[in-house]
Amino acid sequence: MRALTDGRGLLFGGDYNPEQWPEHVWAEDVELMRAAGVNLVTVGVFSWARIEPEPGVRDFAWLDRVLDLMHGAGIAVDLATPTASPPPWLGHRWPSTLQVDERGHRLWYGSRNQFCPNSPIYRKRALSIVTDLAERYAAHPAPALWHVGNEYGQVCHCDDSAAAFRTWLRGRYGDLDTLNEAWGTTFWSQRYSDWAEIIPPRHAPYLINPSQRLDWRRFCSDALLDHFRAERDILREHTPDRPVTTNFMGFFKPVDYARWAGEQDIVSNDCYPDPGDPLSPARTALTHDLMRGLGQGRPWLLMEQTTSAVNWRPHNLPKPPGQFRLESLQALARGADGLCYFQWRASAFGAERFHSAMLPHAGPGTRLHAAVRAHGRELRRLARVAGEPVPARVAMVFDWESWWALEEPGRPSDRLNADEQLLRYYLPLWERGVSVDVVPPSAELGAYALVVAPNLFLISDEDAAALTAYARAGGVLVVGPFSGVVDPRAHVRTGRFPAPLREVLGASGEEWLPAQDGPVPCRWAGGGAFEAHTWTESLAAEGAEPVAEFAEGDLAGRPAVLRHRFGNGVAWYVATLPETEALGELTERVLRDAGLAGALPSGVLPPGLEAVRRGEVLFLLNHGDGTATVPVPHPAQDLLTGTTVTDHVTLAPREVAALREKRPHEPA
Amino acid sequence: MRALTDGRGLLFGGDYNPEQWPEHVWAEDVELMRAAGVNLVTVGVFSWARIEPEPGVRDFAWLDRVLDLMHGAGIAVDLATPTASPPPWLGHRWPSTLQVDERGHRLWYGSRNQFCPNSPIYRKRALSIVTDLAERYAAHPAPALWHVGNEYGQVCHCDDSAAAFRTWLRGRYGDLDTLNEAWGTTFWSQRYSDWAEIIPPRHAPYLINPSQRLDWRRFCSDALLDHFRAERDILREHTPDRPVTTNFMGFFKPVDYARWAGEQDIVSNDCYPDPGDPLSPARTALTHDLMRGLGQGRPWLLMEQTTSAVNWRPHNLPKPPGQFRLESLQALARGADGLCYFQWRASAFGAERFHSAMLPHAGPGTRLHAAVRAHGRELRRLARVAGEPVPARVAMVFDWESWWALEEPGRPSDRLNADEQLLRYYLPLWERGVSVDVVPPSAELGAYALVVAPNLFLISDEDAAALTAYARAGGVLVVGPFSGVVDPRAHVRTGRFPAPLREVLGASGEEWLPAQDGPVPCRWAGGGAFEAHTWTESLAAEGAEPVAEFAEGDLAGRPAVLRHRFGNGVAWYVATLPETEALGELTERVLRDAGLAGALPSGVLPPGLEAVRRGEVLFLLNHGDGTATVPVPHPAQDLLTGTTVTDHVTLAPREVAALREKRPHEPA
Amino acid sequence: MRALTDGRGLLFGGDYNPEQWPEHVWAEDVELMRAAGVNLVTVGVFSWARIEPEPGVRDFAWLDRVLDLMHGAGIAVDLATPTASPPPWLGHRWPSTLQVDERGHRLWYGSRNQFCPNSPIYRKRALSIVTDLAERYAAHPAPALWHVGNEYGQVCHCDDSAAAFRTWLRGRYGDLDTLNEAWGTTFWSQRYSDWAEIIPPRHAPYLINPSQRLDWRRFCSDALLDHFRAERDILREHTPDRPVTTNFMGFFKPVDYARWAGEQDIVSNDCYPDPGDPLSPARTALTHDLMRGLGQGRPWLLMEQTTSAVNWRPHNLPKPPGQFRLESLQALARGADGLCYFQWRASAFGAERFHSAMLPHAGPGTRLHAAVRAHGRELRRLARVAGEPVPARVAMVFDWESWWALEEPGRPSDRLNADEQLLRYYLPLWERGVSVDVVPPSAELGAYALVVAPNLFLISDEDAAALTAYARAGGVLVVGPFSGVVDPRAHVRTGRFPAPLREVLGASGEEWLPAQDGPVPCRWAGGGAFEAHTWTESLAAEGAEPVAEFAEGDLAGRPAVLRHRFGNGVAWYVATLPETEALGELTERVLRDAGLAGALPSGVLPPGLEAVRRGEVLFLLNHGDGTATVPVPHPAQDLLTGTTVTDHVTLAPREVAALREKRPHEPA
Repeated sequence: MRALTDGRGLLFGGDYNPEQWPEHVWAEDVELMRAAGVNLVTVGVFSWARIEPEPGVRDFAWLDRVLDLMHGAGIAVDLATPTASPPPWLGHRWPSTLQVDERGHRLWYGSRNQFCPNSPIYRKRALSIVTDLAERYAAHPAPALWHVGNEYGQVCHCDDSAAAFRTWLRGRYGDLDTLNEAWGTTFWSQRYSDWAEIIPPRHAPYLINPSQRLDWRRFCSDALLDHFRAERDILREHTPDRPVTTNFMGFFKPVDYARWAGEQDIVSNDCYPDPGDPLSPARTALTHDLMRGLGQGRPWLLMEQTTSAVNWRPHNLPKPPGQFRLESLQALARGADGLCYFQWRASAFGAERFHSAMLPHAGPGTRLHAAVRAHGRELRRLARVAGEPVPARVAMVFDWESWWALEEPGRPSDRLNADEQLLRYYLPLWERGVSVDVVPPSAELGAYALVVAPNLFLISDEDAAALTAYARAGGVLVVGPFSGVVDPRAHVRTGRFPAPLREVLGASGEEWLPAQDGPVPCRWAGGGAFEAHTWTESLAAEGAEPVAEFAEGDLAGRPAVLRHRFGNGVAWYVATLPETEALGELTERVLRDAGLAGALPSGVLPPGLEAVRRGEVLFLLNHGDGTATVPVPHPAQDLLTGTTVTDHVTLAPREVAALREKRPHEPA
Repeated sequence: MRALTDGRGLLFGGDYNPEQWPEHVWAEDVELMRAAGVNLVTVGVFSWARIEPEPGVRDFAWLDRVLDLMHGAGIAVDLATPTASPPPWLGHRWPSTLQVDERGHRLWYGSRNQFCPNSPIYRKRALSIVTDLAERYAAHPAPALWHVGNEYGQVCHCDDSAAAFRTWLRGRYGDLDTLNEAWGTTFWSQRYSDWAEIIPPRHAPYLINPSQRLDWRRFCSDALLDHFRAERDILREHTPDRPVTTNFMGFFKPVDYARWAGEQDIVSNDCYPDPGDPLSPARTALTHDLMRGLGQGRPWLLMEQTTSAVNWRPHNLPKPPGQFRLESLQALARGADGLCYFQWRASAFGAERFHSAMLPHAGPGTRLHAAVRAHGRELRRLARVAGEPVPARVAMVFDWESWWALEEPGRPSDRLNADEQLLRYYLPLWERGVSVDVVPPSAELGAYALVVAPNLFLISDEDAAALTAYARAGGVLVVGPFSGVVDPRAHVRTGRFPAPLREVLGASGEEWLPAQDGPVPCRWAGGGAFEAHTWTESLAAEGAEPVAEFAEGDLAGRPAVLRHRFGNGVAWYVATLPETEALGELTERVLRDAGLAGALPSGVLPPGLEAVRRGEVLFLLNHGDGTATVPVPHPAQDLLTGTTVTDHVTLAPREVAALREKRPHEPA
Repeated sequence: MRALTDGRGLLFGGDYNPEQWPEHVWAEDVELMRAAGVNLVTVGVFSWARIEPEPGVRDFAWLDRVLDLMHGAGIAVDLATPTASPPPWLGHRWPSTLQVDERGHRLWYGSRNQFCPNSPIYRKRALSIVTDLAERYAAHPAPALWHVGNEYGQVCHCDDSAAAFRTWLRGRYGDLDTLNEAWGTTFWSQRYSDWAEIIPPRHAPYLINPSQRLDWRRFCSDALLDHFRAERDILREHTPDRPVTTNFMGFFKPVDYARWAGEQDIVSNDCYPDPGDPLSPARTALTHDLMRGLGQGRPWLLMEQTTSAVNWRPHNLPKPPGQFRLESLQALARGADGLCYFQWRASAFGAERFHSAMLPHAGPGTRLHAAVRAHGRELRRLARVAGEPVPARVAMVFDWESWWALEEPGRPSDRLNADEQLLRYYLPLWERGVSVDVVPPSAELGAYALVVAPNLFLISDEDAAALTAYARAGGVLVVGPFSGVVDPRAHVRTGRFPAPLREVLGASGEEWLPAQDGPVPCRWAGGGAFEAHTWTESLAAEGAEPVAEFAEGDLAGRPAVLRHRFGNGVAWYVATLPETEALGELTERVLRDAGLAGALPSGVLPPGLEAVRRGEVLFLLNHGDGTATVPVPHPAQDLLTGTTVTDHVTLAPREVAALREKRPHEPA
């Protein structure tokens, strides 16, 4: 990322699709970009048909002109391989390159992204154009970053995919007996007698084998990753020093970004918060913390966001004035070094005509574009933040494989979801200004004072041992319900649960008991009632101290929350879903165990006020509907306004302060 | 229509399917028809398999007997081409004649209407039977009208259809570059390099190109029209003087009736109001006004309605006693010269066994059939209405292409719909007894005092110019929100909106802003609050006077409704969706601008009372739940009862008065 | 059944799938089974792939060991033919063996039950393995019962199925003209000119011919039955004395169990009440009464139930402690001689990992397994109940063909459903402790004092005559609305309805009138108001006495409930859907007509308390949330506790008493 920000400061820009406009518009674009402080544009994402109008033909001339223009204007280019959306001729001539859904329907061209990642024909054609692109622009001074494909997520059930799935399975299991055992094919008479019999999970009479489906999800993510790597390796061969990325989509279920992140030079993300969702600020913060966690703390790139409404929800609320700036600064505060938008100029045609942009249909003389320009300018004042870390003492553990395994049909309850639980545990930390890294279970946890695992339905022996060791060594561990249930084959670990975490949690159980609709009354051991919902478990303490118990029904008096002093640390087990307030109380207790506090002293943050430190800057962001007043610990300079703040800062709705504290060691 | 009503008076009858009954029943039918005053029956709609039991065989003998029987009874026949529902043998022998949906599923026989209008085999077989039918009955005295097919609406995605689509596109665009530009195929890498690549919009990974979809809708409507024309031309060749029609279905989205109406000798419609919908009376009136508008004011034919319940809703409410008569007379009052029913005798088998009919399963000795007979008799008293016009000084503009273009996925909000907006603006006019013609934007508008365009998302330059000219010349124009947005290619017109109507409206805007759930508070410039919902826009007046403004939020103080004195006329722009009462107030103001009043003085119509003039008769129809008393302007004779009304008329629920005013020039 | 219970007493056990576990686990299983009193296990349901790992290969060795083990432990085996779930190799090598849905999608392996019952290849392969299984275990002492397939319900629309459908139709109709008439193919031009044209109802543009669909449902049920019979006949050939069964699924719509029951040696059922449904106790009782009725009063076998939660609902509530025992005893009380569970040991893998079992994942040292053991023990105390009848003087008539015919699309209302109406009429009888047999309309009714037919939309002339004769001979008959509507071809019986029941009911009607949302006010002839809903009819009494009338609207004063003294009996016609309380009042009146009372005097049963006599034992089951006190008529011994009850019995929630009354003739 330093390669990008050095000399440029924070990155600001967006997708630029000049092929949609006559060339005389390009000149206006450049002028307006410069006025707005744009220093990075993504070019070529959907240009395959333009570059290769017929099979084997190449037309790079227009792209040469675009890159020259950008270079002349001092704007760096994030140059995309155009392989996300093949031209109609590919699907027309080779229908096997088109995806097939689980019922056997082909997904046709006329939209975008219609390709099967397992099609040899697609792969050959895609790598060919990537090779030519890399060759042509290896030496061009404009491109500063490679952008591979776009928002990977294709899933295909065709016969090419079945063959690739079999190859992947051979690699994983070696022989068919091992596969049969891993998939538990003695159940329902599913034993495979020949590799050729194995197919993707397709339309079937009833529930499909969950181990098969879990491997299918692993394979689908890996198949895309394999193609990503193939493109990336070509690019690296031609430009070893130019970083490569592809744009993630936050908590996007089909693709295991934890396996992908290590293959990126820069982690990039597309982020489209719903303006109608009151939890958007925290949900978005969580996504940013995931991106930072995926990159192991390194700065990341917000590749796509938008200035106002999107076009793909049923009713697309616009962002009120100030909102996109607030969101941009939130990303910056949480570790982004670049703040880019889809897209520079609003399209006049195509399916995204009504997606907002940096330059709206109504042109530059608009409120919206003025705000874009102002935001581009103010980012220069925050340049010092580029490259700085966001220190976090708390890790939240999230695992795609466990997510996939948990959310299979045929489970105790579809109301217990991995991403939702992650958010529920994140919220009280976010409200308290406690920074969090979202990490995979295999991450190095030693440096964290607190590790929270809201749900780890699937856990490997190694990861369970690592969590155990973490607590034994002095860490504070929090584990949510229905964790430790299955092994990586999705087999239930028999015996009292959660088998592999039983030692560290000092408790075990007999039955998972989804709860009836309505609240589940509980009480704290020290007194005081609270409510939970959806889920209970019948547990017995085995060394842990019951911190809360169920108050009614068959479980009355049985533990609901347990705390286990274990080795030099503490392990908590929460066997239900506490309501918001109770989760707050729980969080306070856990933070005390971990000796942690938020960015500001406890209790000073008004609702909706987000506080996060990045480097030496304390960001305060007001997501609330009212004006907020926040006491500040030290006199500080607000980098956005240049003013000095001494005692407290007052923020109107959607306002932000970026406080560089004047510590004693600085001249006042 | 005169050819039909001359000598017969108003037409009364229904679909007659004698092939479902043994011939001894036919005699009873004829007797009962005569007793009920039936003078027109539609025969043969679903007779293909009966006439052509095997490919190439013909059996007309039974039909000869039916027509002879009808002729002998003095009942005219609306003779149908039987091509709506091919026999099983067609689909069995030639599966390519069966429709294919967007996922590639064939739609099989066993129901009805299973044909692809683009199948050469279907077309050849259909035209062959039409030719034989026309030849055989060209000279028969019974048929007075040809009925082509039935409720056209087939959409097919098969390869024959793809080929026909390409032919249609060649005709529209000439060359591929023009098509690529019109469809904006530089977006998402959709450029076509060969005509052969073009396909119907099929199952795809994401949103499909909206310009492609708009052309597909145009094509689908045109393909059916093309087949209709082919059948019609054969009929005309054999019987140049016998009128030809096909039955429309009101605001039926798949078929652009504005393009079809000019091809009909008589506009016909099928109308099935939902007895459970409180807006049915106005919704139905609007549909009748559309039929009159499509026929440029000429009388039309209500081809299908029913006496009580239908069978295709989940829960089919019956019509209470008096209801079908009320609805029949409503159609008459709004321009119908014929009032026909589906069907004469309730079927004992088949999928429509539970569709009500003129003669119910329980037989002639029933309340329902008695009401049918009484209604048939009373129509004779209204014979003078036949052929009379329904004068209207208000035009509401409705356009199928704009409807299609608006309601594509990927738009700002799916809560803003063309047909719903049309109804919302229609309601206050209907409540005030103001007659309306529903016309396409290309209609001649000069004679109207008021033109209301609730939504014209898509508008051509020519139509925008015509609206502008209309206001300049002294008309009053009302335009609803999100109008003038795209051109006929579905490309957004860039710059401040609504670009092509900016001059006439004297205002322009920057952003379309779908509103959060809940009311949007507004206030009239002259004082008084009202509520709107769903939609707002950020506008600036450019000559227009703000009549109402938004009262809260980021738009507070910005115009919500504008009024622009323009040339000799006035143009209104309504940039939100006012609630019912506010639309009423707006309507009052607009009517004052236009110098218009309803059929009766303002304020005299009780809720649910419909008042409409046809020729010299004032119809008063009580759709309300209570007895209504209406003052009448002049002494009048109620043609239904024969009584003279002097001061006011009192109508029980579902009662109707047909008042022929005794004007001064008439002897009292 | 005696063959099974003699020497064993009540049967207790479950599905046993040892192939899912290493053999060392089998020894533990046997020990735990013996400790729990298990005396019957079902083995081999899903063993096809294990027995025939490759086409033509056989591996019975493991099964030999399982059966030997069971025999050694004195546990009888219900040995299953493994044909419910073919191995992947079958579908892979012969895709035509896989089902095809109505849109043409093949249903693939990877789940279970993927076979087309009309596939010659499937049938040949299935019968081959059944033959080998029967041969091998004909002489083995362990198997005491054959279990054919599993939960039959496959429906397939493939070409093999089309051919089989045609064959079935030829058998039914003989010639094509008869079929065309039966199906009413003159409607919508559906006439078939060749048998080859006939296909299953497939994806079509609109409603499909209801007569075709009714025959299709008949055929689908018969096709499965045909295959069941083929397997059964092989088994009988080898073991003429070993009873054969297959497991039903209660009111399972696709299969007409009334046609199947006579083909079973023992009627078996799978029963999974929803713990979240407050009507579960009565709904389950009704299902048990159906099983008893299907077996003409003989004891039946509860083949599958579960100890706690299932896994296939979205949110799977567990059963509270005591619940599965309560349900087991309910089945026993209502005629079951065996109480089996799915399954013995909870699976660690596969799609049913989270289905509860007799031995949970957490092992034998659990609350749940302790309850299983205790229940197994207490069943010995109830051994005398085995083989005893459940005397019932009330028959409720239920007919699969009528159910199918009623619930076709295109009917007056989808809110009037056959199974729901059956439950509504059953509830007040169940609450009063009145035992009921659920029987087909063709059953011998003479012995019943009361026959209730909540809905018989379709009725044959013979069945109508039988109901008429039943009332004439002195029986009390109750008929619900929309009965007698169609004949077995699904043709409406024209004329006043209900044509074939008009004589017995002494009333007839003109119109079926689905009601608007909200209550339909009614009043009893003797005074007192009540509410009905959803449905009304316009009726005239023709000898019957109006017992209740509609109180408002167009039907005000018209009969809602009629009572007809007819011959020596009484016939009631209920032309609407009375609310719960009114149905209770109606039930009281009807019971008085029939001279019937419940198991205990009227009014003594608290809510949720079920009372039912089996043999000489009065079962009292508390399904309510509170402790219930019930006076008992005679001193009695509670077989479950061994205590003597003199005056009343007090039951905590989910508790049961099994009272053997000490009648005068017994020593006290």
